[in-house]
Amino acid sequence: MAGNTFGKNFKVTTWGESHGPAIGVVIDGCPAGLPLCEEDIQPMMDRRHPQPTPVFNPYGVEIEAAPVNKRKEPDKIRILSGVFEGMTTGTPISIMIENTDVKSKDYDDLKDVYRPGHADYTFDMKYGIRDHRGGGRSSGRETAARVAAGAIAVKILDELGIKISSDITYLGFADEDDSAGGTVECVVTGMPAGVGETVFDKLDARLGQAVMSIGAVKAFEVGAGVMASQLTGSMNNDEFIVLDGKITKNTNNAGGILGGMSDGDEIVIKAYFKPTPSISKPQNTVNKNGEEVTITISGRHDDNVVEKAQVVVEAMVAVTLVDALFENMHSRLDKIKEFYR
Amino acid sequence: MAGNTFGKNFKVTTWGESHGPAIGVVIDGCPAGLPLCEEDIQPMMDRRHPQPTPVFNPYGVEIEAAPVNKRKEPDKIRILSGVFEGMTTGTPISIMIENTDVKSKDYDDLKDVYRPGHADYTFDMKYGIRDHRGGGRSSGRETAARVAAGAIAVKILDELGIKISSDITYLGFADEDDSAGGTVECVVTGMPAGVGETVFDKLDARLGQAVMSIGAVKAFEVGAGVMASQLTGSMNNDEFIVLDGKITKNTNNAGGILGGMSDGDEIVIKAYFKPTPSISKPQNTVNKNGEEVTITISGRHDDNVVEKAQVVVEAMVAVTLVDALFENMHSRLDKIKEFYR
Amino acid sequence: MAGNTFGKNFKVTTWGESHGPAIGVVIDGCPAGLPLCEEDIQPMMDRRHPQPTPVFNPYGVEIEAAPVNKRKEPDKIRILSGVFEGMTTGTPISIMIENTDVKSKDYDDLKDVYRPGHADYTFDMKYGIRDHRGGGRSSGRETAARVAAGAIAVKILDELGIKISSDITYLGFADEDDSAGGTVECVVTGMPAGVGETVFDKLDARLGQAVMSIGAVKAFEVGAGVMASQLTGSMNNDEFIVLDGKITKNTNNAGGILGGMSDGDEIVIKAYFKPTPSISKPQNTVNKNGEEVTITISGRHDDNVVEKAQVVVEAMVAVTLVDALFENMHSRLDKIKEFYR
Amino acid sequence: MAGNTFGKNFKVTTWGESHGPAIGVVIDGCPAGLPLCEEDIQPMMDRRHPQPTPVFNPYGVEIEAAPVNKRKEPDKIRILSGVFEGMTTGTPISIMIENTDVKSKDYDDLKDVYRPGHADYTFDMKYGIRDHRGGGRSSGRETAARVAAGAIAVKILDELGIKISSDITYLGFADEDDSAGGTVECVVTGMPAGVGETVFDKLDARLGQAVMSIGAVKAFEVGAGVMASQLTGSMNNDEFIVLDGKITKNTNNAGGILGGMSDGDEIVIKAYFKPTPSISKPQNTVNKNGEEVTITISGRHDDNVVEKAQVVVEAMVAVTLVDALFENMHSRLDKIKEFYR
Repeated sequence: MAGNTFGKNFKVTTWGESHGPAIGVVIDGCPAGLPLCEEDIQPMMDRRHPQPTPVFNPYGVEIEAAPVNKRKEPDKIRILSGVFEGMTTGTPISIMIENTDVKSKDYDDLKDVYRPGHADYTFDMKYGIRDHRGGGRSSGRETAARVAAGAIAVKILDELGIKISSDITYLGFADEDDSAGGTVECVVTGMPAGVGETVFDKLDARLGQAVMSIGAVKAFEVGAGVMASQLTGSMNNDEFIVLDGKITKNTNNAGGILGGMSDGDEIVIKAYFKPTPSISKPQNTVNKNGEEVTITISGRHDDNVVEKAQVVVEAMVAVTLVDALFENMHSRLDKIKEFYR
Repeated sequence: MAGNTFGKNFKVTTWGESHGPAIGVVIDGCPAGLPLCEEDIQPMMDRRHPQPTPVFNPYGVEIEAAPVNKRKEPDKIRILSGVFEGMTTGTPISIMIENTDVKSKDYDDLKDVYRPGHADYTFDMKYGIRDHRGGGRSSGRETAARVAAGAIAVKILDELGIKISSDITYLGFADEDDSAGGTVECVVTGMPAGVGETVFDKLDARLGQAVMSIGAVKAFEVGAGVMASQLTGSMNNDEFIVLDGKITKNTNNAGGILGGMSDGDEIVIKAYFKPTPSISKPQNTVNKNGEEVTITISGRHDDNVVEKAQVVVEAMVAVTLVDALFENMHSRLDKIKEFYR
Repeated sequence: MAGNTFGKNFKVTTWGESHGPAIGVVIDGCPAGLPLCEEDIQPMMDRRHPQPTPVFNPYGVEIEAAPVNKRKEPDKIRILSGVFEGMTTGTPISIMIENTDVKSKDYDDLKDVYRPGHADYTFDMKYGIRDHRGGGRSSGRETAARVAAGAIAVKILDELGIKISSDITYLGFADEDDSAGGTVECVVTGMPAGVGETVFDKLDARLGQAVMSIGAVKAFEVGAGVMASQLTGSMNNDEFIVLDGKITKNTNNAGGILGGMSDGDEIVIKAYFKPTPSISKPQNTVNKNGEEVTITISGRHDDNVVEKAQVVVEAMVAVTLVDALFENMHSRLDKIKEFYR
Repeated sequence: MAGNTFGKNFKVTTWGESHGPAIGVVIDGCPAGLPLCEEDIQPMMDRRHPQPTPVFNPYGVEIEAAPVNKRKEPDKIRILSGVFEGMTTGTPISIMIENTDVKSKDYDDLKDVYRPGHADYTFDMKYGIRDHRGGGRSSGRETAARVAAGAIAVKILDELGIKISSDITYLGFADEDDSAGGTVECVVTGMPAGVGETVFDKLDARLGQAVMSIGAVKAFEVGAGVMASQLTGSMNNDEFIVLDGKITKNTNNAGGILGGMSDGDEIVIKAYFKPTPSISKPQNTVNKNGEEVTITISGRHDDNVVEKAQVVVEAMVAVTLVDALFENMHSRLDKIKEFYR
């Protein structure tokens, strides 16, 4: 499983299981000179735990109180290296998040059962062994480590005048014993033109891997995306114009990426999330011994992960952009000469 | 632009511009002992040039003759290394395809113009210089090199009982001076379970990068894809069942991948292609000097690249699968011990 | 500084500074099914702290008592992930070693001084900032993390019947206020033939990088090494012979590696260590402001690091071999087919 | 054998066998804007074929005429991509060198014999198959492709004011039917301080891999190298001084690298070459069937490869430095901000 590192220049390696002692991340390639402390990272971590909101009816009357979060995960991070006197030093940044409030007993019943929509079966097929507690390595909890790395990437982007934001453009709804999915749109502003490589490491291709690597994502698109396949060239092409003396486009079906490189416009990507596979509704499945069984899943899980996952999309986008920005720095000899003058 | 290599174990590096002397690919990591000659590769190359078909009216009457292909590219490949007496030796396989029928003059008018939907502008932003002839490195012609590598990957998969096929599930239509897009669905059968890594290198994430790296692709999905975001968990989850004594699923919304690993079912992915940006209809744009101009694009280009690109999707899927299959070989100690016994 | 990871398949990423809260390592690519607990790793960690021995005169009379270790570093490791119920699961193994007994005050005087033979000056040149306490990231302490990873690699090799041992073949001697270097020879037995790649990733080239990356190593050789350059071909060539029905060589000037691949013989490499640059003798140097100053270095350091570094050489060799053994698994189609049958 | 690529940012991939139709190299990551044509590369290629010189006696009398080169290899290169109108474009540069004057017949007798000191046996052990003609992929001929890449690296270094030179500091001598080795020292001037990474990718560690990956190299050292292991700290440490207002060192035992990073001083490394294993003297060995045989090797080979290999050392050093220079560009946030301002 040598696939726990993302990025070439800004390298993010996550580790840890849902119910082990801790999870964490090592960021290798963070430049020296970035002011950084735990407080810079924590707010983005907290966004993985959106405040529960009450349900209102169409007349604005609260018909259901805000639910109490099922699992309290403070996601309290600790920086173990790479920062000295409040400043990054260029050495690897190790961040650890201890697992608290772990109730592994909850999962004993599911030890030998292959939960539909989960990685239980494939883990067994690949490794012949697995940590069955709460999804183990495949748990959504792993994304906390991504967000910690993402928070640092966001800080770097911020220094370069690049901003990331996102919206839930569709949020599914499901009865109390079922689950639903949704869609997150992520927008990047301030991206300089010409970042991204032109063949296999196209900026949209790398963003594709980054976003598709988030557990529940089943589709990814850039710009007009799926819709672009149904337009004609004259409708889909964005015309170049000159605005305030600068070259730009009058539309943005490209989503800010042309030929794999940023075009200076807003980068717009979308991630489609499947409904969480953990539902309390009874489901038919099979266990390790090949016997057909019926299960209902309790334990800590959410009806809809989209609100929680929104910040993970931003994190992965941020990490990808920083990586591409760094790689781009040695594209032109004149710039290299200027750097080493 | 150190992004011209795809894969870690089965590494594919393409090179070459549309109007240079040749294009090509180096495949590093092809195992020894695969029977291979030019004739094994050529048929897949030829599929990049689908036979033109006449247009029929709803009554089956031919209303338009089959058009003559605009550019004859025989894509005649030559193997320069890595094969000895009809067998791969484990050393890098270098394949070259000479560019013939090159009419660079056609592009002189477009030298300083940023064609809408093309990489002209971003290339200039990144490199400050570019080969403007026929798209240069960003030309669809680069995909010929991918297909050559894909053909070898397909041969390896074949030896392992794994088959790839694809369909155009939507093909747009456009008037003579415009262009259209479409959708390609690609299906893999015979894939063993447990292949793919579980975090950043999930099989669907890698397929995402692979497919999104094809020029005109704007969206990628696996299994139920976009649709999955609108289902409930109980609808989307595939129940495990036992069939003929083997564990399988009764539906395949997962598209054959769970937790980033193949589940033994058919792998199903979809690529959405935008319409070709090269259209003869007049378009407003801007040139290098920041002057607004109107252009009409002639030269060798297609109304719809989807038929041509279908085989490229298969090629990229094949390359990704071979790479993942190799990486998977050191996942379990018992298998490693068996290998080295 | 994206250079904190070693290996492609068995990937070792170290992090941490000498005087930060902790140091550690993430091992990505350890196969599932290896029995592993802290006790398996600790003994190799302890070898980084060789027992001090008394000095005897040529007549066997003790003339100097065993010195007391200058710094007590228990190097107590803790496994945070990747192991479940005493068995590796194939997910990344995170190991942390807390820094105890840290006396950062000792280094305040050296904050702005460039110690001769140390990385102080180059760190400042590269990053413009550095953690000056005890060498920071360049401290020998970083090698503790390597040894932890090496211990796991050694366990894997052990399962495959491959053994690593080493000897100090030369140990320099220096007066009490000076330091000395030495030579470590490392021998591998039981290595199967054909492991290692044939061009840039030759087994000896990778071992070269691995060993040269240990702080104080200034030269590396394989087999007859330096001496080979002074022999004739007929003296240096190892003749192949048949012994007990098996092909072997009658000498081993090659050091067990031919054309970058193991030849089934003992692998023999040698590392040459410079004397520790930290000496208490007064030295002339320069400080950050470009002023010439004289310094004497106190603090925790050793007269000779070779005894301590011996196990680091073994660790790096072990990690390199495991990586190469994994990569070798997809060299032949027949073996791949057998694997996936 | 996915080990035919060297470098992360300036990636060099070689391909080709000694007796196939051609050999070549793809350079991915060469920045745009470097003036480049075949004539820039050819002179360095030609240095792989040093002019034969006569042998003089101690009194200056020619006692032996200059021998005629055994094999004429013009090593005529052809650039197939990545250059447009005499300037690199940032896209991959593909270079091909056709194999001419190939007399494969010469090798038929050796088809099943394991030549001592060669990779024949290990190739068979690894791949079960091999191109036996003239060393195949393990032939010294592969280094021609390295030199072509090295010539481009040298050009880049030149633009940055960095120069590489080398000397044969020891050249062995052998009778007509035997062979000898030697030593090459390579010196780099003008290298800025702070280049190289601090842990596994130390500049000397990477140079170690680069140089050890040249076929006949059996030992590598930096600075005082082997000798450093026998000095005391006070002898080996280079004192920092101020000269002409700049910080420098009064000696250079470090060889221009401290803590894995360049210190601004001359970089000095040494490569020790074993004698060519191909000798005409009769040798005992074993064939594929395990039978003991005696062989004498004819065919195209040299008494001493050191003169030919000298330029290969320079090429590998150049490639390594360019790679490190590029990687270093994203070490500091202030420099990154300046770049993207």
